[in-house]
Amino acid sequence: MSLIVQKYGGSSVADAESIKRVAKRIVQTRKAGNDVVVAVSAMGDTTDELLDLAHEVAPLPSPRELDMLLTAGERISMALLAMAIESLGQEARSFTGSQAGMITDAQHGAARIVDVTHKRVQEALDDGAIAIVAGFQGFNRVTGDITTLGRGGSDTTAVALAAALGAEVCEIYTDVDGVFTADPRVVPRAQKIERVTSEEMLELAASGAKVLYIRAVEYARRHGVTLHVRSSFNNSEGTIVFNPAAPGQDENGDPVEEPIIAGVAHDLSEAKITVVGVPDIPGKAAQIFNIVAKSGANIDMIVQNVSAAATGLTDISFTLPKSDAQAALTALTSERDAVGFTALQHDDQIGKLSLIGAGMRTNVGVSAALFTALYEAGINIEMISTSEIRISVVTRADTIQEAVRAVHTAFGLDGEAEAIVHAGTGR
Amino acid sequence: MSLIVQKYGGSSVADAESIKRVAKRIVQTRKAGNDVVVAVSAMGDTTDELLDLAHEVAPLPSPRELDMLLTAGERISMALLAMAIESLGQEARSFTGSQAGMITDAQHGAARIVDVTHKRVQEALDDGAIAIVAGFQGFNRVTGDITTLGRGGSDTTAVALAAALGAEVCEIYTDVDGVFTADPRVVPRAQKIERVTSEEMLELAASGAKVLYIRAVEYARRHGVTLHVRSSFNNSEGTIVFNPAAPGQDENGDPVEEPIIAGVAHDLSEAKITVVGVPDIPGKAAQIFNIVAKSGANIDMIVQNVSAAATGLTDISFTLPKSDAQAALTALTSERDAVGFTALQHDDQIGKLSLIGAGMRTNVGVSAALFTALYEAGINIEMISTSEIRISVVTRADTIQEAVRAVHTAFGLDGEAEAIVHAGTGR
Repeated sequence: MSLIVQKYGGSSVADAESIKRVAKRIVQTRKAGNDVVVAVSAMGDTTDELLDLAHEVAPLPSPRELDMLLTAGERISMALLAMAIESLGQEARSFTGSQAGMITDAQHGAARIVDVTHKRVQEALDDGAIAIVAGFQGFNRVTGDITTLGRGGSDTTAVALAAALGAEVCEIYTDVDGVFTADPRVVPRAQKIERVTSEEMLELAASGAKVLYIRAVEYARRHGVTLHVRSSFNNSEGTIVFNPAAPGQDENGDPVEEPIIAGVAHDLSEAKITVVGVPDIPGKAAQIFNIVAKSGANIDMIVQNVSAAATGLTDISFTLPKSDAQAALTALTSERDAVGFTALQHDDQIGKLSLIGAGMRTNVGVSAALFTALYEAGINIEMISTSEIRISVVTRADTIQEAVRAVHTAFGLDGEAEAIVHAGTGR
Repeated sequence: MSLIVQKYGGSSVADAESIKRVAKRIVQTRKAGNDVVVAVSAMGDTTDELLDLAHEVAPLPSPRELDMLLTAGERISMALLAMAIESLGQEARSFTGSQAGMITDAQHGAARIVDVTHKRVQEALDDGAIAIVAGFQGFNRVTGDITTLGRGGSDTTAVALAAALGAEVCEIYTDVDGVFTADPRVVPRAQKIERVTSEEMLELAASGAKVLYIRAVEYARRHGVTLHVRSSFNNSEGTIVFNPAAPGQDENGDPVEEPIIAGVAHDLSEAKITVVGVPDIPGKAAQIFNIVAKSGANIDMIVQNVSAAATGLTDISFTLPKSDAQAALTALTSERDAVGFTALQHDDQIGKLSLIGAGMRTNVGVSAALFTALYEAGINIEMISTSEIRISVVTRADTIQEAVRAVHTAFGLDGEAEAIVHAGTGR
């Protein structure tokens, strides 16, 4: 008997009917001969409604009490889901994060899992029951307090349970069919990706693909958990996120052909800040980015222009989440004299396009092909950054959709056109 | 510094505004120099809404999961209340039933408190914080599961905390001004009772007065906790429920004059079942009430008529909650041959009037005065039962209001003016 962990997001359990539908699917999985552990999110908009209530009673609710409040959400959905399963004649037992042994640090609102003591979950399985675990929530042993894992926390709960219990697969149920080669709302001919490495998935998630959260993918990668991202609204196979035994191999160590490009992601959530007229002397960049880091901002891309010899001044640009921009600008302004720059420019009309693929490592010419495609589409590139398996460019926000479509086509990713381009490596 | 336990019911924390109002009152109590522990119910109709959801997903939800579900209600209200207090600049810490050490047996839906391990609540007080405890909920150590205390559970939580912490008083905040000599909706000239013994309060609660639950009063009586029942919508003094040092004394052992009558209660929630034609031989009553007890019904009053000598048959009537009647009837019908009765009669149009007062013990003629008052009002008495400090009569349901008013007047309980009732008017 193999063990399957399933995660259902808020849209999959939005109301009583949805909960009954999900319960049926869970019971089917059990009847097919699997042990089943389920991580479930709060119903639909429950979390947002609770947040609204919190802000009605307190302008700045304390993180401890906010976690206490929000964890009521999964408590409701998990108990209802367990009841719905039991009414189909299958034993079920719901567990809070604390009962399921999701031990975290004490960082309220963004706690990290430090241990999974899954004794009660295992006992439920041993008794033949389906275990329903509250997603998103944990427990700190030192303070005795309830914590939450932050955005995408239920995915992380599911992956952590899958890792601790040695599950065969962790199925992430959502309201889309899987991971796509591009956002299907932007690229109608985007195709569902059948298999993607966890490394590629990490870059996709970090570059704007919203179907999975970075932390959950990281956790799965570190613990060798295979993910299956699929829809709770149909029975189609989704996308398998696997951990290759080695580059050019599948999870079992068998050779596979790696596609050069897994997909094209885009992101409109970032802004660009340019620090103008920075003295071109050693240590200035470090000074600037220390100031920004202290403001709590997460920097993504950085570009430093060549200094104009006549002035001895240079410009430094970086991108960061729009929500962090104000804090960074305030921090930099207050240190203007110490750094010695002339001005700050803030631009929130940028878009980022990223091309991701493990096959890039062994293929030359990918950057050139990308820049050519954008040039031919008449799109101007403002910044460039690359990793081993990713190339990202910043463009104007209002050209990003056209850019994504052009690149998707240029790399042969469109459905009913040429199949995925394969690398000649791996054999 | 003295310790005050306060309990706020669902109508006192029905929305964000109410929560802020209650938070202010709690902070005032703290600033007046008291340590404060608060037991809070779920907001407004939350519990009913969760129950509706449960019945939408499962016709017969399991008691364990139902408790898991319902306990989300106080989790929400207690976290919001703690936030609201903190936003007034006072430290607050919310605790679930489990965290507050409300240890119960494993009887889901109607658990009994077996221990209160209030270490974390005491620590919060020692740190100068206000402790907010989820009412209604507990924790079973053997199963590790969450339990609920059943109807009126939040009152019991408050009283149990007051007993364990040695509180000076346990204030029960509600949407009425206190305990009245009769239901003010029926008797406009009913008066608020200033002081009542816990023994009288028990009889009042058992006889239909809804302001306090029997279990909480029992707990307070057993542990010597003084209750103060009052409105959360104004600052009036409410009703003190005290434990006399001895009959005819107050809680400090000082002599007091006991009023003969504390109040008149009525109850329309019971039905009457008559078992007709029971063989008048020893053991038949025991047989009948064993059958009824096994059906789970709680019997209140019992009357057995004198046997008609000619037939050797008698009739036995008893009252029980309307909600238990069907189960009792089914159980009796299935044992008809064994018992040997002729027929069953079911009557759900009865009302019960009870006259309660500790002074009855030392006063003769109370029953006679009661029966006279009812006779003069033209009301027929169908059954009578008495305890040391209570006389109850069953009448037709449609005469009960008139009966209550007649008795209230006859025993000199009418106030000078009509009572002002603040029933959740938001004042």
